[in-house]
Amino acid sequence: MSDGPIDHLIRQLSALPGLGPRSARRAVLHLLSRRDSALEILVRSLEEVARTTHACPECGNLDTLSPCRLCRDTHRRPVICVVASVADLWAVERTKSYRGRYHVLGGVLSALGGTGPEDLKLEALVSRVRACAIEEVILALGATVEGQATAHYVADMLRETGVRISRLSHGVPVGGELDYLDDGTIALALTARTQAG
Amino acid sequence: MSDGPIDHLIRQLSALPGLGPRSARRAVLHLLSRRDSALEILVRSLEEVARTTHACPECGNLDTLSPCRLCRDTHRRPVICVVASVADLWAVERTKSYRGRYHVLGGVLSALGGTGPEDLKLEALVSRVRACAIEEVILALGATVEGQATAHYVADMLRETGVRISRLSHGVPVGGELDYLDDGTIALALTARTQAG
Repeated sequence: MSDGPIDHLIRQLSALPGLGPRSARRAVLHLLSRRDSALEILVRSLEEVARTTHACPECGNLDTLSPCRLCRDTHRRPVICVVASVADLWAVERTKSYRGRYHVLGGVLSALGGTGPEDLKLEALVSRVRACAIEEVILALGATVEGQATAHYVADMLRETGVRISRLSHGVPVGGELDYLDDGTIALALTARTQAG
Repeated sequence: MSDGPIDHLIRQLSALPGLGPRSARRAVLHLLSRRDSALEILVRSLEEVARTTHACPECGNLDTLSPCRLCRDTHRRPVICVVASVADLWAVERTKSYRGRYHVLGGVLSALGGTGPEDLKLEALVSRVRACAIEEVILALGATVEGQATAHYVADMLRETGVRISRLSHGVPVGGELDYLDDGTIALALTARTQAG
């Protein structure tokens, strides 16, 4: 509206992933109409997160504890799930079907994006596998060209440690209709078919 | 992830219009990976807006000045555009095709939502029309049942002032394909057809 603080805030919010100018404007008006119950609480929340949250020196997860509570959990099995980002770590953890440890690489290899092996936490992964008597490393990287290239690279690096290396299965997603799936996924699901019954 | 500050912040952001849990998580990770360039600046921006922004006592617009810069602009014509919300005021102002004043009602009449005439800034509108020698009132309310009921109510209230009252035209939106429009809009656009050529 004006070139003042409201516009500045709208621009800040528009820069967040998933928010455009229209939703940023709606968010600002929502916050301004609920100063005490939303705006002030959001500011305090942001400040607290900024003050208390750190990247775990072990696995790279974001947490208020350091090492994070996943690394402190002694009931977790000596298995490491390698993920590209904290978002992916949270996605695996939400399934509640995995009870091992994690390792956040901090990205995937990308010639185009200028991400080389030296930009990823690869040496630290090899050290952890050696130091913690890890039994298996699960490569949970995206089914993209870059994700798969990274998985190959990590598997090569880990070969000398002798640890068992696995990767996520690929195929038809749960609830997926064949008609809406891309040809590549269907072809891969055919090749990687498993015995039924 | 944990029940700590990160989860709290994600819940705060999920409550904003246009953001769900997934985009709130992505926003938090975006902010945490850019503490100095995004998180700190967003906190300062929110604080500044909370501290400096007020509802204009004249028209109800949100601005750092009071009365707002639209009300201070002496070049604006003695016409009042009545809108339901500040978001609608901004939407009209963005068109750059209107150079009059505004009046934010603060909602529309809604039996279901429990909004009665006493909840809207109606008396203030009548006073402004009388005090400022207003020539025309444009009712820019949504083409919904509630918006149109409110427009009728406001028009009734203003009748005694003798001011000219108009409302936005209804019909096919610019770029609208007939095939994708609802029957009501097409029927209305037929009835309200204008002479061509």
